[in-house]
Amino acid sequence: MTTYTAPIEEMMFLFDNLRDNKNYNQLEKYKEINSDLVKDILEQAAKINQEIILPLAKIGDESPCVYENGIVRSPPGYKEAYKKFIEDGWTSLSCDPKYGGQGVPKTVSTFFEEMLSSSSLAFKLYSELSIGAYNCILSHADDKIKEKFLPKIVEGKWSGTMCLTESQCGTDLGLLKTKAIKQKDGSYKISGQKIFITSGDHDLTENIIHLVLARTPDAPAGTKGISLFLVPKLIVNDDGSVGSRNGVNTGSIESKMGIKGSPTCVLNFDNSIGYMIGAENKGLNSMFTMMNLERIVVGIQGLGISETAYQNALAYAKERKQGKANNNKTNETDFIIKHADIRRSLMNMRSIIEGERGLAFWLSQQVDVSLNHSDEKIKKSAADIVSLMTPVIKSFFTDMGMEITNETIQIFGGYGYTKDQGIEQLFRDNRITPIYEGTNSVQAIDLVYRKILNSKILEEYISQIDEEIKNCKDNKDLDLFLERVLKYKEILINFTSWLKTKQSISKDDISSACNDYLKVLGYVSLSYSWLRMLRVSYEKMSTNKSFFEEKINTGKYYFDKILPRAESHYIAGITGSESTMKANFN
Amino acid sequence: MTTYTAPIEEMMFLFDNLRDNKNYNQLEKYKEINSDLVKDILEQAAKINQEIILPLAKIGDESPCVYENGIVRSPPGYKEAYKKFIEDGWTSLSCDPKYGGQGVPKTVSTFFEEMLSSSSLAFKLYSELSIGAYNCILSHADDKIKEKFLPKIVEGKWSGTMCLTESQCGTDLGLLKTKAIKQKDGSYKISGQKIFITSGDHDLTENIIHLVLARTPDAPAGTKGISLFLVPKLIVNDDGSVGSRNGVNTGSIESKMGIKGSPTCVLNFDNSIGYMIGAENKGLNSMFTMMNLERIVVGIQGLGISETAYQNALAYAKERKQGKANNNKTNETDFIIKHADIRRSLMNMRSIIEGERGLAFWLSQQVDVSLNHSDEKIKKSAADIVSLMTPVIKSFFTDMGMEITNETIQIFGGYGYTKDQGIEQLFRDNRITPIYEGTNSVQAIDLVYRKILNSKILEEYISQIDEEIKNCKDNKDLDLFLERVLKYKEILINFTSWLKTKQSISKDDISSACNDYLKVLGYVSLSYSWLRMLRVSYEKMSTNKSFFEEKINTGKYYFDKILPRAESHYIAGITGSESTMKANFN
Repeated sequence: MTTYTAPIEEMMFLFDNLRDNKNYNQLEKYKEINSDLVKDILEQAAKINQEIILPLAKIGDESPCVYENGIVRSPPGYKEAYKKFIEDGWTSLSCDPKYGGQGVPKTVSTFFEEMLSSSSLAFKLYSELSIGAYNCILSHADDKIKEKFLPKIVEGKWSGTMCLTESQCGTDLGLLKTKAIKQKDGSYKISGQKIFITSGDHDLTENIIHLVLARTPDAPAGTKGISLFLVPKLIVNDDGSVGSRNGVNTGSIESKMGIKGSPTCVLNFDNSIGYMIGAENKGLNSMFTMMNLERIVVGIQGLGISETAYQNALAYAKERKQGKANNNKTNETDFIIKHADIRRSLMNMRSIIEGERGLAFWLSQQVDVSLNHSDEKIKKSAADIVSLMTPVIKSFFTDMGMEITNETIQIFGGYGYTKDQGIEQLFRDNRITPIYEGTNSVQAIDLVYRKILNSKILEEYISQIDEEIKNCKDNKDLDLFLERVLKYKEILINFTSWLKTKQSISKDDISSACNDYLKVLGYVSLSYSWLRMLRVSYEKMSTNKSFFEEKINTGKYYFDKILPRAESHYIAGITGSESTMKANFN
Repeated sequence: MTTYTAPIEEMMFLFDNLRDNKNYNQLEKYKEINSDLVKDILEQAAKINQEIILPLAKIGDESPCVYENGIVRSPPGYKEAYKKFIEDGWTSLSCDPKYGGQGVPKTVSTFFEEMLSSSSLAFKLYSELSIGAYNCILSHADDKIKEKFLPKIVEGKWSGTMCLTESQCGTDLGLLKTKAIKQKDGSYKISGQKIFITSGDHDLTENIIHLVLARTPDAPAGTKGISLFLVPKLIVNDDGSVGSRNGVNTGSIESKMGIKGSPTCVLNFDNSIGYMIGAENKGLNSMFTMMNLERIVVGIQGLGISETAYQNALAYAKERKQGKANNNKTNETDFIIKHADIRRSLMNMRSIIEGERGLAFWLSQQVDVSLNHSDEKIKKSAADIVSLMTPVIKSFFTDMGMEITNETIQIFGGYGYTKDQGIEQLFRDNRITPIYEGTNSVQAIDLVYRKILNSKILEEYISQIDEEIKNCKDNKDLDLFLERVLKYKEILINFTSWLKTKQSISKDDISSACNDYLKVLGYVSLSYSWLRMLRVSYEKMSTNKSFFEEKINTGKYYFDKILPRAESHYIAGITGSESTMKANFN
């Protein structure tokens, strides 16, 4: 089994030193969320994750969900763990106190998301979509629906799903066919088949609240004719109690490469009763409220799994003896952590993980501002930054998760390929993250076409980087880092200009460069994250010398060894699409 | 299930047009291996691979090998397929006719290795190590042993293994403990435990011939005290018949991430009778005869699996409709192959695969010269090039295999993550290839320390590239490609010089750059391979316009989009190891 210790010191380093978004710090509702309280929450969170949730990872992989006689059973132990999980209030962490939530900001709940992902992604998924459903209902449903459904979701007694995909439509939601017919009482009858529904059916909660995309009879074709419906597994009576079965049946569950403890369902909706959420034909907009926050969470999944992979690789490197390191003058075999190449591999992981965590913390502050600030302009501006960074966090963190879990297998060698140690499971579990909630290529296309080419958000983002550069100018120690940030920021700007000049000339040139562009933005963003952490590390050096020296060393590694990758992506990206489009593929 | 059609046209393109090594063409024994004969062999090979072996991949994954009461059973259908396989003479393809082989050169048998890898790596592994054992026995054993064991191995009635790894020694063979005590009759009694033994036990062959590394009682410590022994599972009588059981028992088989149809065994040797192969304490040298050729074959495994991944991604892209391409002016949804980003992904795969196949074919000629040329100097010079390129082929092709199978999953989306289509299996099966026969990092270290820093082989290789550049100078169409080859060859040379200057200053700088260096050599080597193919394509254009135009287009893609990756590896590589070595990892 893998081991895991929640990186509370790293998290508190960020919370104590990099909570520097002045708009975030103005948020009245989070004034009481102080360092002591957060440390306490993280310690409690660490406890349940390390002791109760971590063991569920291997259990779920070895005893996957079972579908029998129309019923889905979760793996052994999941029920008991989930009961404890909701009793301790973990589903309600970031929810509005109005509905029973604890009202903790994203700056804190994101750390919890990371811990859960590190412990067991499969277990996490049972409650993850509930939070997505909560956000969507909170933003778009009327008060009656909110009062009826939200308290139970917040409490964790009911869970949620997102029902988008059908067999003929994944990326292209315009093709969806599920029908919704209005009834006299204002409700709808929903019919159609949805596939790949995470937590679509299971035995952990009393009820499951499906958020379903469907078309009304007169809806326009394509994405403009899609509405959103709330469809409970069991009808909810007016008094809030659970009534009879609705027409939602589970057709089957998927046999998958990983996250085997999480049921991925085919759901058949057969005249099931549903309630429209938001306006007719505007369902995609509402769903995207859920989707966008969810995409950030998927990025955090990649980060969380990477952390577990890193910790296990490090522990193994400290206990496995093999060969002699370069400076070995004895006859003794060395622990492999002495070998430069193993250290390189560990530093790859670490410098990416710490950079990502810093970036996620910076973004969490923006998310909190975007959801809660009283000034609409500030709110909008933060929302813009969030919309720019959402595809980056989703794709970049999950791709890096593949790289990092892959490197961990290499460090374990043959022991990484066999099942005993749980290492290969991290690689398999993480492999879903570049796919679901929109494949990473779809994220890259979204980034370029909807954010870069259609708005000035990048300029706003770059002005934030420039401000950080200004903050760093007084410290000579940062010169080398600043020089690199400036160089690669220049590459980002040049790549962006290239995309813009192509707009009227060749869309194919743009489309085939999206992935490279996202990577460049990702690496540059991590350099921004590192620059912030490096500045603070020099400032605070005297308070915790060994911690900050190590932090600076890891940052230096990032600038030396990881950031240069942006260069190749840029060179390749701007060669255009001629050969790509000319190929016959016969 | 995956589909697969052997790429005979691509293979014959190489055999007909790029069999240009003049030393190879001098080899008397291969004079009769002409185009018609090869085409015939490849067609027969395609038939058995497509019809009989391909279906075994999924069967082995779903019904893995079973270990029960000390006995290993192969998956359903493997026995019948293996029977047909040896009846048709496929194990004997490249073996010496003196022992019943067909004497086919590596230029041809490598194509067959690729096809087998494309069809079912798990099934391939049953016979793969037999060829390794054959090579080792042929080169190092005395005539009596050869006559006793080789004919049965060539025939496929007996199979072979390589027994190196023990629980405390993987990469570092100096730590191995298995003992060999000499008996009065000149044989040895071997005792110890070996792990991770591919095809260590199974029910496909009458006998299994283990090649085991062990120490005699007075052997020096470390790698200088290791000898090699032939230990049959069943004692072979003087008349060649199979006798009683030898003291070799199977302790267990591993539960693995992939290649589940192949048994990976713990073998317990308990006073088992063995025969020394080669000189005492020189066992590693002999084993490396087997190992080195085997490493090339592992690279070819990566290539073969990549080909299947590519073919399936391509087929899916041609049948899956989703969204509209940039140039779509209708209301119809497009096949995803119309999308620039999907095409980019397919072209990534294809340009790497075709480049690799070209490089492997070029190297196969060198291997044939290194094994068979009558002029010792020429033989040695070819062997040098083979030794230089072995770690590159092993690591680079298998790493690219991970990238390519990964991209195939992305193209399939959710359908790539579920088990039905067999796509995720390619990713899992290939994942062993960067590990076994020496991890890819070990290959990189071997490349740099044993080949680059210790010899002038790279200069010889670069002079071959320069010769090709000279051949291309007359064709103006090649100018752009030449310019790029020159640029990246320069990077390779600069990186090499950097390594050499570090020799007396910082071994850690070198060790931490080995992986980046291997990647640079890999990408440059593929550009060399492509340059050769491009020259021929322009020369032969009129004979098959559509084929050669497509080839040139794919080559252009390689130079535009893939080769630039070498740049980042170089920039990162030469930043040294300061932060890598300074990290505390507390």
